[in-house]
Amino acid sequence: MKAGIYHGLHDVSVEELPKPELIPGSIVIKNVRAGICGTDLHAYGLEYEGVCIYPGNQFGHEMVGVVDEVADGVTDFKKGDFVFVNPCTFKDPTPERGTLANCDMAGAFSQYVRVDRPRENYNVFKLDPGLSPNVAALIEPVSVALNGIEIAHPKPGDKVLIYGGGIIGLCALACLGCLGFDDVVVTARNDFRCGKVTEMGGVLCDTRKQSIPEFVIDHWGSLTGNSSEKTWNADLVIDCGGWKGCIEEMMKYAKAGSAISEVSLGISEEKITASQLACKAIRIYGSFAYTPEVNSRAIAMITENPERFAPIVTAVYGLSQLPEAFEAASNSHKNVKVLIDHTK
Amino acid sequence: MKAGIYHGLHDVSVEELPKPELIPGSIVIKNVRAGICGTDLHAYGLEYEGVCIYPGNQFGHEMVGVVDEVADGVTDFKKGDFVFVNPCTFKDPTPERGTLANCDMAGAFSQYVRVDRPRENYNVFKLDPGLSPNVAALIEPVSVALNGIEIAHPKPGDKVLIYGGGIIGLCALACLGCLGFDDVVVTARNDFRCGKVTEMGGVLCDTRKQSIPEFVIDHWGSLTGNSSEKTWNADLVIDCGGWKGCIEEMMKYAKAGSAISEVSLGISEEKITASQLACKAIRIYGSFAYTPEVNSRAIAMITENPERFAPIVTAVYGLSQLPEAFEAASNSHKNVKVLIDHTK
Repeated sequence: MKAGIYHGLHDVSVEELPKPELIPGSIVIKNVRAGICGTDLHAYGLEYEGVCIYPGNQFGHEMVGVVDEVADGVTDFKKGDFVFVNPCTFKDPTPERGTLANCDMAGAFSQYVRVDRPRENYNVFKLDPGLSPNVAALIEPVSVALNGIEIAHPKPGDKVLIYGGGIIGLCALACLGCLGFDDVVVTARNDFRCGKVTEMGGVLCDTRKQSIPEFVIDHWGSLTGNSSEKTWNADLVIDCGGWKGCIEEMMKYAKAGSAISEVSLGISEEKITASQLACKAIRIYGSFAYTPEVNSRAIAMITENPERFAPIVTAVYGLSQLPEAFEAASNSHKNVKVLIDHTK
Repeated sequence: MKAGIYHGLHDVSVEELPKPELIPGSIVIKNVRAGICGTDLHAYGLEYEGVCIYPGNQFGHEMVGVVDEVADGVTDFKKGDFVFVNPCTFKDPTPERGTLANCDMAGAFSQYVRVDRPRENYNVFKLDPGLSPNVAALIEPVSVALNGIEIAHPKPGDKVLIYGGGIIGLCALACLGCLGFDDVVVTARNDFRCGKVTEMGGVLCDTRKQSIPEFVIDHWGSLTGNSSEKTWNADLVIDCGGWKGCIEEMMKYAKAGSAISEVSLGISEEKITASQLACKAIRIYGSFAYTPEVNSRAIAMITENPERFAPIVTAVYGLSQLPEAFEAASNSHKNVKVLIDHTK
C-alpha cells in the first residue's frame, strides 16, 4: 500500500509499505479521507517531539474509511461499513490512565489501517453511508471542539467568545450553532479566516482593527466585578488560540461566575493570581481530546447538520500530493482544513 | 449598645452606639457569638482597603444570635428564634450581580444587628436551639469551605489534599469528614496547627519536614501523565493557603483529570500554561463565598456533627476584650478560630 511518512521538518513523502495483515480479533480499514491536523502541521513546520510524531513513521490521526477485512469472530463490523476511527483508543482500547485517552498516531495518511480490538462506538463508529466523506473527515477535530464546549457546561443563552478562528475555533462555532447558540464571537486576523467566521454565522472580532476586550465590551457591554474592575460580559471563553497573553487577558476581563475552556496547547507562561480566581469565581477547564461519548455526539451533530461544517474544508488533495497538501495546509491565509482523498 | 469598631492597623475598640431601630419589614437580632475571620485579621494586621473594612465603622460578619424584635407583618421569624445571618445578603437581599453575592460587613462585633428584609433560608436561617453557640458561630467559615468543596464535585473515594491547615482548611477537613472522605491530607507548619490536623482526623503533611509533593507522592503514590512528567495522585487539591508558588506547584504535580479548588485570596503572580491545563485536562474552580443553599447544607452538617467542628474554636472572649481577642487570633501558634461571646 501507499503510506504517508513523516521524515522531519518540511519533509513528508509517500512510500510503499506492506498492507497491514489481518490478525485474530482485528479489522482492516481502507481509508477514504484523512485530515491534516494542527498537530501534524506542528511536526511539519516547528518540531515533532512535543507531539509524538517521529521521523520514519506513518502518521495522521483524523480518518474515516471503509471496512475492508474482518477477522473471524468479529461481529460488530462487516466489510463495506463506512466508519470513523477514534485515534485515541486505536492502539490501546483499554487505557489505564483513568479518564484520559492514550492518544496515538494511527496512520491516517496510509491507504489501510488495522484496528486490533474493534468495538462499536468505542474505537470504531459506523457512519451513515450517505454522509459526505469530506464532512465526515471532520469528526475528529469536531470532537476536540465539542469536548471543549461540553466540559464547561454552557447554559442556553450564554454569551460565548472563541479565541482563534482556526480549525478548532471554527469547529466550535459550528457545534455551538447546532446547540442553539447564535451569538458567538470569534476572533480572526487575516482576510481568509475573517471571511470564514462570517460565512459560518459567527460574530467577527477582527483583531487587526480592535483589541478583543474592546470588541467584546462593545458587543455585549461591560460589568463591574467584585474586584471593582471593568469586566466583559461573556459567560464562556473557549481558547483555541493559545497565543502569548491569552490567559492573562481572559482572566483580567472575565466576569464573575464565568468559565474559560482551554483547548489550545499554548506554551507561553501566563501570570494569574489565586485572588483573581476566587474573587470572580472563575472556572477554568483544560480540555484534552474527547471520550467515545463525545465522538458519538459529534457524529450525530455532523450527520444532522453537514452544511454547518462543510465550509471548514477548504482543499482536498490526493495521497500522492501529500507534500503539496502540507504546504497548502500551512498557509492560514488560504486554508482552514486540508484533506487527503484516498480515492483520488 | 456596645459595638466593636475598626480604627486601623492593630486598633479596634468597643464603643457605645445606639441600638439599631426596628423599621418596617425588619427584624433586630441580639448577637450571641461572633467569629474573627481571616478578613478581619487582614484588616487588623496588614491593610484594610482590599477587604472593605473601613476605619470608624462597625465590622465583623460571622454571627449567630437571637431574634429580639420583629416588625409588624414579618411572619418568617419570631422573638427568641436562634438564627444565623448570611452576611453576603445582609444589606442587599436581591443582589444584581448574577450568581455572586454582594459581601458586606455586618456588625457581628456589635450587640445588635438589624436585617431589613429577612427571608428564611436566604439571609436569615433558623437554627436548632440545642446547637452549641460556639459551634454555630462556625457556620460562615464552614460555608466558605463547603462551597470550595462542592464546586469541584468530588466523587466518593477521591483523594483530597488541602493546602493550609488554617481556619478554612480545617473547616474543609471537617466537612470532608462529614461527606465520607477519610483520607484527607492537610498541610501545616507549626506545632499547634499540626496538632489540630491530627486531632481532627486529617493526614498531616508537616511542611517543616518534607515538601508537599514529596509527602503526597509518598502517601498516595505517583503517576506518569500525558506530558511524561511525574504527577501526584490527588484527585482534588483545595487551596486554602495562597502562598507564593502554590498554584505553580499544584499545576506541576496535578494528575490528569484532577481538580484544583481555589479558596484562598493569594495575590502572588503564578505562572501557568495553556498546555498544562489542556494536556492534563485540569479543572480549576475559583470559590467565592457561598450561596444560601450552601449555608443550609453547612448548617445541617454542623448540627448533625458538632464534634467534628468543635476543635476549630480555640478561644472565646467577651466583647469588652475585643482587642485582646484580636491579638490572640493573630497568633497562629496558639489559635485557630477565636470567638466573641456577646453573653459574657
